[in-house]
Amino acid sequence: MTVKVGIIMGSQSDWPTMKETADILDTLGVAYEARIVSAHRTPDRLWEYGKTAIARGLEVIVAGAGGAAHLPGMIASKTRLPVIGVPVQTRALSGLDSLYSIVQMPRGFPVATMAIGAAGAANAGLMAAGILALNDPDLARRLDDWRTALSTAIPEDPRHD
Amino acid sequence: MTVKVGIIMGSQSDWPTMKETADILDTLGVAYEARIVSAHRTPDRLWEYGKTAIARGLEVIVAGAGGAAHLPGMIASKTRLPVIGVPVQTRALSGLDSLYSIVQMPRGFPVATMAIGAAGAANAGLMAAGILALNDPDLARRLDDWRTALSTAIPEDPRHD
Amino acid sequence: MTVKVGIIMGSQSDWPTMKETADILDTLGVAYEARIVSAHRTPDRLWEYGKTAIARGLEVIVAGAGGAAHLPGMIASKTRLPVIGVPVQTRALSGLDSLYSIVQMPRGFPVATMAIGAAGAANAGLMAAGILALNDPDLARRLDDWRTALSTAIPEDPRHD
Amino acid sequence: MTVKVGIIMGSQSDWPTMKETADILDTLGVAYEARIVSAHRTPDRLWEYGKTAIARGLEVIVAGAGGAAHLPGMIASKTRLPVIGVPVQTRALSGLDSLYSIVQMPRGFPVATMAIGAAGAANAGLMAAGILALNDPDLARRLDDWRTALSTAIPEDPRHD
Amino acid sequence: MTVKVGIIMGSQSDWPTMKETADILDTLGVAYEARIVSAHRTPDRLWEYGKTAIARGLEVIVAGAGGAAHLPGMIASKTRLPVIGVPVQTRALSGLDSLYSIVQMPRGFPVATMAIGAAGAANAGLMAAGILALNDPDLARRLDDWRTALSTAIPEDPRHD
Amino acid sequence: MTVKVGIIMGSQSDWPTMKETADILDTLGVAYEARIVSAHRTPDRLWEYGKTAIARGLEVIVAGAGGAAHLPGMIASKTRLPVIGVPVQTRALSGLDSLYSIVQMPRGFPVATMAIGAAGAANAGLMAAGILALNDPDLARRLDDWRTALSTAIPEDPRHD
Amino acid sequence: MTVKVGIIMGSQSDWPTMKETADILDTLGVAYEARIVSAHRTPDRLWEYGKTAIARGLEVIVAGAGGAAHLPGMIASKTRLPVIGVPVQTRALSGLDSLYSIVQMPRGFPVATMAIGAAGAANAGLMAAGILALNDPDLARRLDDWRTALSTAIPEDPRHD
Amino acid sequence: MTVKVGIIMGSQSDWPTMKETADILDTLGVAYEARIVSAHRTPDRLWEYGKTAIARGLEVIVAGAGGAAHLPGMIASKTRLPVIGVPVQTRALSGLDSLYSIVQMPRGFPVATMAIGAAGAANAGLMAAGILALNDPDLARRLDDWRTALSTAIPEDPRHD
Repeated sequence: MTVKVGIIMGSQSDWPTMKETADILDTLGVAYEARIVSAHRTPDRLWEYGKTAIARGLEVIVAGAGGAAHLPGMIASKTRLPVIGVPVQTRALSGLDSLYSIVQMPRGFPVATMAIGAAGAANAGLMAAGILALNDPDLARRLDDWRTALSTAIPEDPRHD
Repeated sequence: MTVKVGIIMGSQSDWPTMKETADILDTLGVAYEARIVSAHRTPDRLWEYGKTAIARGLEVIVAGAGGAAHLPGMIASKTRLPVIGVPVQTRALSGLDSLYSIVQMPRGFPVATMAIGAAGAANAGLMAAGILALNDPDLARRLDDWRTALSTAIPEDPRHD
Repeated sequence: MTVKVGIIMGSQSDWPTMKETADILDTLGVAYEARIVSAHRTPDRLWEYGKTAIARGLEVIVAGAGGAAHLPGMIASKTRLPVIGVPVQTRALSGLDSLYSIVQMPRGFPVATMAIGAAGAANAGLMAAGILALNDPDLARRLDDWRTALSTAIPEDPRHD
Repeated sequence: MTVKVGIIMGSQSDWPTMKETADILDTLGVAYEARIVSAHRTPDRLWEYGKTAIARGLEVIVAGAGGAAHLPGMIASKTRLPVIGVPVQTRALSGLDSLYSIVQMPRGFPVATMAIGAAGAANAGLMAAGILALNDPDLARRLDDWRTALSTAIPEDPRHD
Repeated sequence: MTVKVGIIMGSQSDWPTMKETADILDTLGVAYEARIVSAHRTPDRLWEYGKTAIARGLEVIVAGAGGAAHLPGMIASKTRLPVIGVPVQTRALSGLDSLYSIVQMPRGFPVATMAIGAAGAANAGLMAAGILALNDPDLARRLDDWRTALSTAIPEDPRHD
Repeated sequence: MTVKVGIIMGSQSDWPTMKETADILDTLGVAYEARIVSAHRTPDRLWEYGKTAIARGLEVIVAGAGGAAHLPGMIASKTRLPVIGVPVQTRALSGLDSLYSIVQMPRGFPVATMAIGAAGAANAGLMAAGILALNDPDLARRLDDWRTALSTAIPEDPRHD
Repeated sequence: MTVKVGIIMGSQSDWPTMKETADILDTLGVAYEARIVSAHRTPDRLWEYGKTAIARGLEVIVAGAGGAAHLPGMIASKTRLPVIGVPVQTRALSGLDSLYSIVQMPRGFPVATMAIGAAGAANAGLMAAGILALNDPDLARRLDDWRTALSTAIPEDPRHD
Repeated sequence: MTVKVGIIMGSQSDWPTMKETADILDTLGVAYEARIVSAHRTPDRLWEYGKTAIARGLEVIVAGAGGAAHLPGMIASKTRLPVIGVPVQTRALSGLDSLYSIVQMPRGFPVATMAIGAAGAANAGLMAAGILALNDPDLARRLDDWRTALSTAIPEDPRHD
C-alpha cells in the first residue's frame, strides 16, 4: 500500500498528540509514515522532506508542533501538497501560541489548521482521508461508514449511558 | 469546465473578504460557484447544499463566516468533502470569535481553518487548488508556476521598490 | 406535568455540567427532558428537535456545548422559542472558545448566554424558571422563595461558618 | 398597550447601541420604556426600578452597559423577571470587559447575555419578544413573520446585490 | 481600638483569599472587621454597609470578589471612602473576569484594584495601612519597619537559602 | 496651599491622559504638582522623587504609564505613601500591557490601579481626593457635593437629551 | 566600514517598521545591510543568508516579521549569531500573533524579542549596538552618549513643552 | 575564569526557573554569578548592580521575573550591557503578565525577551553564550558543538525512542 500521508512533528514529545492522527488513519486503512522533523533542530531534514514529498508519492502532509510552531508553515513553503497543521497544547499559553503561529500564515502559503490538541490531531487524520477520498472510492465509502457510525452511536438521553 | 469548488458565506457582507478566494481561483483557472448560505438564516439551504454537494460534482467547499461562525462547521457535518474555513474579521473582537468558532471543531468534523481576513480567504483558494491539483497535473503546473512567481517577484533590498 | 423545558447538549461528556440545570429545575418543580442533540454528529436530530419543539409543548430550550459550540445557535435558527446557551469549560481554552461561539450570534438569532461551566448551567435553570414564572404564579412564588433562601442563608462573618 | 419591556442603560452614551433594541420592539409592535438607570451614579433609582418592576407590569428587562458593566447583574439581583444583558463596546478593551462583567454572574442570578454591541442590542429585542410571545399568539405570529422575512430576503449569489 | 478597615467579600469561598488582608492588618496592628456582603445575594446589606460606613468610623473598605465581581464597584457607589478591590481567582477565566469587572470602573467611582488572588489581598492590607498611616505616625513607623524587614530578609545568592 | 498630590508620568505623551487627573483635582480644590518622571530614562529622578516625597509633604502619588509601565510600581517601592496607578492606552495592545504591568504587583508593594485611559485618570484624582478627605472635612464636603451632582445630572429618558 | 548587522524582514510592507532599526544604527554609526528574506516565499534565500552570515562578517541579525512570523526563529536555527526579533503589528490581532510566533521559541534556539511595532524596531537597533559595543569602545561611548541625551532631554513639567 | 554573565532574579522562588540558565552556562563553560536582586524589595541593590556591572567585568545580564516583572527593564535603564529577560510563569495569568511587562519596553531600553518559563530560561543562557562567542572563538566552537549535538540526537521515527 503506497504511503500517501506523511505525519511529521517537531519533537518526540508531540507524539502522544499526533498518535491520534495515526490511529484515525489506521482505522480508515490509510497508509502513512510518521517522522520527527524539527523546523529548528533539523531544518535540512525539513527541506529535504518538503522537496522530495511529491516525488516520494506523498499526497497530504500533517504537521504538528507547539509554541512558536514553525513546522507546518515551513513545510508549506517547500511543497504545493496540502499541509494540515495541528497546534499542540503548551504549558504556559495552552496552545494559543501554537494556534497563532500555525493559522496566521501570510498570503501564498496556506496551512489547514485544526483544533488545539488531541481532537485536532484526530481531525487531521479525517481531513487527510477526506482529501484522498476524492480520488479513492473505497476510502470514500469507509469514511462515510465511519461518519455514519459516529452519529448512530449517540444515545438520546444523557442519563442512560 | 465543471465547477469543483463551492465558495459559500454567511452574509452578503462577507463577500469583500471571500472575493479573495474567487480571485485566486480565477487566476489559477479553477471553476467555482459563489453562494450565500447562512447557517442561521437559511439553514435549510445549508442542509440542501451539504447533502447534494458530492452529487453535484463539488470536490472542495470554502466557507467564510464571522462572529459565532457556524457555517463552516455545519457544512462539514453534512458532507465528507474537505471544508476550508475562513474567519471573517469582526468589529468588536477582530475575528478572534470567528477563529475560535471555526477552528475548535470537535473530533469527527474537521474544518481546514485559514488566517483571519483577506489573507486567509486568498489562502483558501490556494488550499482548494492544492487539493484539486493532486488529481489534475495541469492545475498542479499552474499552481507551481504561481508559487514560483510569488518567490521570484521579491526584491532583495527593501529600500528600492 | 407537561414538559416545558428541553435541556439539550452536544455530547454525553457535557452532562456533568448540564446536570446542574436539571437539578435546579427539579428543586423548583419544573418538568424537563434531557437529550443529547449534537449539531455535528446528529444534525437531523437537531433539525427535528427545533422544528417540533413548539408543537410538543416546549417553551424554553437550554443548550450546552463546548469548543466550537454550534448547538445553541443552530437550535435558535430553527425555533422562535427562547434558547439559553451554556458554554461548557474546555481543556485548552477554558471555555473561552465555547463562550465566543455561543454569545457572538448575528442579528436575528439571539442566544441567552450564561457563565462558563457549572454556575452557568445552574443559572440556565433559573433563567428558564424565570421565563416560565411569567405565566405560572405558583412557580413564581417558588422561585421567589428560592431566591429569598439564597440570601438569608448567608452568615455575616466569614470566620464563623 | 401595556409596557412589558423595560430598556435600561448605564449612561446616555449607551443609547446609540440600545436604540437597536427599541427599533426591533417598535417593528414587532411591543411596547417598551427606555430609562437611564446607572448602577453607580443612581443606585437608588436602580433599587427602585428593580423592586417595582413586577408591580408596574414589566415582564422583561433589557439592560445595556459598558466597562465594569454592573447594571444587568445588579438589576437581576433585585427582581425575578428575566434580565437580558447587552455588553456595550468600549474603547480600550472593545467590550470584552463589558462581556465578562455581564456574563460571568454567580450561581443564583442569571443574566441572558447577548453579543457585544449593536447586533447584541437588536437580539435583545428579539429575545424579549420571544419570551413575551410564549403568552401572546399575535406577537408569536409577528415574530415568525419577521424571522421568515429575514430568511427569504437573502440572495443566492453574493455578486448580484 | 476603633475599627477603621472593613473587609468585605462576596462569598464565604472568598475568605481563604481575603484572609491575607486580615493577616497583614493583624501584623501591622490595624483593627478591622470582616463581613460577607454579597452584591447579588444581599444587596440591601451592601446598601446599608455603604451608607453607614462613615458614621460607623470606617476609613477604608477592602472588597474582594470573583467572576462578575460587582461588590467593589457597588460599594464605591454608596460611599466616598476609599475602596480597595481584590480580584479573586476564578476557575474558568483565572480571575481575568474578576479583574476586568473591578478595574474598568466608569468615571466617578474609582476602585483601587490590586493583583489577582492572594498577593493582591495581602497588598490590599498594605494599601489600607498606607492610607491610615497618613494620619497615624505610629502606624507609619510600623509600616516602615515592615517594609524594611521585607527588604533585609533577602539573601543575595539564590542557591543558599 | 500645600501640595499634597504628586502626579507623575513616564513621558510627555502621557499628559493628555493624566491631565484628567489634574482637572478633577482642580475642580475639587486640591493642590497638586505634575512631573515627568521616567522609570527608564530618569531613574535617578524617580529615586529622588520617591525618597523625598514624604519630607516634601506629599500624601498621595498618582503615576501614569503605558506599555511595560514600571513607573507606578517602582515609585511604590521607594515610598510608603499610597500610589495610584493609571494604565495609559497603547497602540498595539490597547493598554492591556500597561494594565498587567501596573496591577500585578508582588506582595509588599501595592499600586491602586485604575481603569485604562482617561476614565482611569479622572478616577485617580477622585481616589486621591477620597484619601485626603479622610482628614479634611472641607474636602470631604466638596467631594460629597461632586458625587451628588454627578448623580442628579442624569436624565431619566435617553431619548431626550 | 564592515557591515556587522543584517536587518532582514519578511516583506516589503515591513520596511516602515524596520526602518526604525536602520535609523538608530545610522545615528550610532553602525554599518548595516537591509534585505527582504521571506521564510515562506524565499526559504532558500533564508538558508543561504543564515549559512553564510558568519563568513560574511555579520555579528548580529535583526529580523522583523508579522503574523505567523517564522523568519526570526528560522534564521536562528541556521546560525549561532545573536538574532533579535521584531514583531510587526498586524491588522486583525495587533501583532499578538507576531509576538507569540517569535518569542515562544523552543529550547535551543533563542530569539531576542523586542516590543511590538516601531518602538521594538528602534530597540532592536539599540540592542544590536549594545552587543557590538562589548568589543568596540568607540561605539560604547557613542551609545552611552545617546543614552545620556535621551535622559537629559526630558522636561520636568509636562505642561511646558 | 572571569565572570561575564550575571543571572539576577526578583525572588528566591524564581530560582527553579533561572537554574536552567545556569545549567546551560555550566554546560558551555561560561562563568556566571547568580543573585537575587528585587526591583521592588531591594531597589538600591538593583541600582548598585546596574551601575557597577561594566566595571566589574560583566558583559551580559540575564534577568528573570514574574507578574509585574520590572527587574529586566529597570536594570536595562541602568546599564548599556545587553539585558536578556525571562518571563517567569505565574499562577493566575500563566506568565502573560510577566511577558507583557518585560517585552513591551519603550524606545530606548531594549530587553531581549525569551519564552515564558524554563525553555526561555535555558535559551537565555544560549543567547548569552552567543553574544560572548562573538569575541571568544573557543566558546563559539563549544556552542557550535552543542547545537550540532542537539540536532543529531533526534530519531527519525517517533514510535521508536
